[in-house]
Amino acid sequence: MFCQSCKDVYEEEEAGTCKECYEEASETEEELKREIDDLRSRLLFLRLPSPTLDASSTAHSDLLLHAIPASSSSSPSPSGDADAGRFDTPAIPAHRVILASKSPVFRAMLDNEMEESRSGIIKIYDVSYDVLRAFVHYMYTAEALLDEQMACDLLVLAEKYEVKHLKSYCEKFITSKVNNDNAITHYAFAHRHSAKQLLEASMSAIMESMPTLAEREEYKELVVKDPRILVEIYETYISRQDNTAADKDSDCSCRK
Amino acid sequence: MFCQSCKDVYEEEEAGTCKECYEEASETEEELKREIDDLRSRLLFLRLPSPTLDASSTAHSDLLLHAIPASSSSSPSPSGDADAGRFDTPAIPAHRVILASKSPVFRAMLDNEMEESRSGIIKIYDVSYDVLRAFVHYMYTAEALLDEQMACDLLVLAEKYEVKHLKSYCEKFITSKVNNDNAITHYAFAHRHSAKQLLEASMSAIMESMPTLAEREEYKELVVKDPRILVEIYETYISRQDNTAADKDSDCSCRK
Repeated sequence: MFCQSCKDVYEEEEAGTCKECYEEASETEEELKREIDDLRSRLLFLRLPSPTLDASSTAHSDLLLHAIPASSSSSPSPSGDADAGRFDTPAIPAHRVILASKSPVFRAMLDNEMEESRSGIIKIYDVSYDVLRAFVHYMYTAEALLDEQMACDLLVLAEKYEVKHLKSYCEKFITSKVNNDNAITHYAFAHRHSAKQLLEASMSAIMESMPTLAEREEYKELVVKDPRILVEIYETYISRQDNTAADKDSDCSCRK
Repeated sequence: MFCQSCKDVYEEEEAGTCKECYEEASETEEELKREIDDLRSRLLFLRLPSPTLDASSTAHSDLLLHAIPASSSSSPSPSGDADAGRFDTPAIPAHRVILASKSPVFRAMLDNEMEESRSGIIKIYDVSYDVLRAFVHYMYTAEALLDEQMACDLLVLAEKYEVKHLKSYCEKFITSKVNNDNAITHYAFAHRHSAKQLLEASMSAIMESMPTLAEREEYKELVVKDPRILVEIYETYISRQDNTAADKDSDCSCRK
């Protein structure tokens, strides 16, 4: 036989598809590629110039965002306003219509004549300038340059402001980075931020290295800080062992 | 042989691909589908609530667009402003940041302290309310519900305001509707609005019905209104005839 795709000759037992299915599959592939081209061009059209990139895209801005890192926010001024105008990093300009459309939290803040809406200044607490910049950039472009730390920081911010799409984007990225060495840390993180996909992936990685689990530094930290998470890990381990044992038993009884 | 796709048995001459290529193609299809899902979800995230649909999405609007149909604009008031506030149809609210990012013409208008920027009112001449509504809707969503008339009207507006993506979207739609009956009209339209793809498609349709061309009403109209277009059609016809003749000659000489 002659393969119409790779042009090689093959034996009967190496047969893949008949001609009709091959042609249908090629057509489907072409259609999918056309759809991808169309979606990409619509994405490009809908992308907005990010106000974090250049001055020209800050035109018509009607909001200023300020990052207040965790260390500065530990003792906020009582009025919440006395420190206005004194920030360590530059303000990030933005547009009400964009923020309100991407985040229900911003929408509530801006549509309801709250202080932020009146002043046009929003302080974002417990976040670095770089993370806030990436956050704003994402809301205009649906794009982010991630490493593990940035993905975790952005996920926290996305959760706080209910930007679901960004949260799920970061969660996917972190999930792809889970391994035996970071599984406990990511499991605890996923637990705190209700990230189900990451929770499952890191639990699977933990299950694979149970014998050495208690030797890890992150384990020892959790014993002190949040032992309930370890209890949950052990419970899952035992229940999976039970299931495996039950599966084996039913296998054995079938063979009898 | 057994087809792994449709599960039918087939003869040797009906072979499509080998197993390896079949598996590779299935993987590619899965990947393409995942990419489509990802692009769709990013598109949904980037779509903005259209201010033409409901009142809640007009929050933070900082512009009003007014449609001035051709009949009303034939005698505009000399100041260009005296008729402000007296419009036949409701204003369409919009946002400077969106319009400026989608159209270089709006950008120039809004970034440069022109009258429209100062007043926050933009009059769009020679256009119906429905077409302007569809135009604004597209700039927020990259979506439009088209019929042939709407596609033509939107193409004209997209060309005027240099919204390339919308122009090409409408052109594709109109091109898909070209047939022998509407080819002359669409050819003349494509000519006026530099729509190359539509120009070629309608020229091809015209070439197929040359013998009856001069009997058509649209032909007779063009004779009066824009005979140069007809000259161009005849020139193309003759040059294609020449090419076909030359091809035939070279075929004959090869066979000799």
